[in-house]
Amino acid sequence: MTTTETSTALFVKMILLQWQTQNTRVDDWLKNVPDEQMLQETAPGRNTGIYLFGHLAAVNDGLFKLLGIGERLHPELDEIFLDSPDKSNKTFPSVDELKKYWAEINTALTTKFNAMQPEEWFERHTAVSAEDFAKEPHRNRLNVIITRTVHQGYHLGQMNYLKN
Amino acid sequence: MTTTETSTALFVKMILLQWQTQNTRVDDWLKNVPDEQMLQETAPGRNTGIYLFGHLAAVNDGLFKLLGIGERLHPELDEIFLDSPDKSNKTFPSVDELKKYWAEINTALTTKFNAMQPEEWFERHTAVSAEDFAKEPHRNRLNVIITRTVHQGYHLGQMNYLKN
Repeated sequence: MTTTETSTALFVKMILLQWQTQNTRVDDWLKNVPDEQMLQETAPGRNTGIYLFGHLAAVNDGLFKLLGIGERLHPELDEIFLDSPDKSNKTFPSVDELKKYWAEINTALTTKFNAMQPEEWFERHTAVSAEDFAKEPHRNRLNVIITRTVHQGYHLGQMNYLKN
Repeated sequence: MTTTETSTALFVKMILLQWQTQNTRVDDWLKNVPDEQMLQETAPGRNTGIYLFGHLAAVNDGLFKLLGIGERLHPELDEIFLDSPDKSNKTFPSVDELKKYWAEINTALTTKFNAMQPEEWFERHTAVSAEDFAKEPHRNRLNVIITRTVHQGYHLGQMNYLKN
């Protein structure tokens, strides 16, 4: 392995470790917050725990298409958790169903990620044009994982207000 | 510039851009949340806005020593915003003072960061031993910025509950 390959592999590892850490924190949240408490607002008038959890599941599921690595598993989540705000009278999946989807999505993503070569992470994602990517090579697949990791952290800060 | 240098510089840019984005979001929060509202709890019984803001300022200030790039500017913030929980009867700096510290700290960090060569980011930080670093080379300075960026996102999610 050359130095370039080694350092590329190291970058990718640094980012995927952080992404995995945030997913694990969501898993811990699921273990520590009773289902009926998840249905509550994280603060008065703010999003409920289950809405934020469904939102994170929908965003992770969206990674298959955004990264161009496969078909998504639960596109039906978008209408409820991305395109509509909380309390829109949409019928939510049950907490148990959402937990199952979350685990399925992350297991499938991890399998895809493990099969990728480090340099593939520096290719462009599907939401940036070839022209823009030529000018802004930082808008690659790995960058998507960085922004999604921060996004997970953002909502975890709110979801943890339901923990005792 | 060789390919290794190019990809190293690109990766550093990707991370520093995200760190800067989070700092800018804190700046936006400062512009959008009136001072008297910052003194309020972000949710009932939870940390106040000013405590979380002071906490982020203290953590950013801690980067000088953690990264080994200089002396910190406001070590006095640690006792109030890191070592003590909110509502410990510690005397807080005023909102105006904290805003001044925040700007000073980030300006000084940006100056230091701009003077660093990309490969310096892959050296170990001061909280990891040489032995551990040999085994875990991802525990470098840049990794600190990644975790701090997610940490900022986490508290911004909470601080934004004070926005209308």
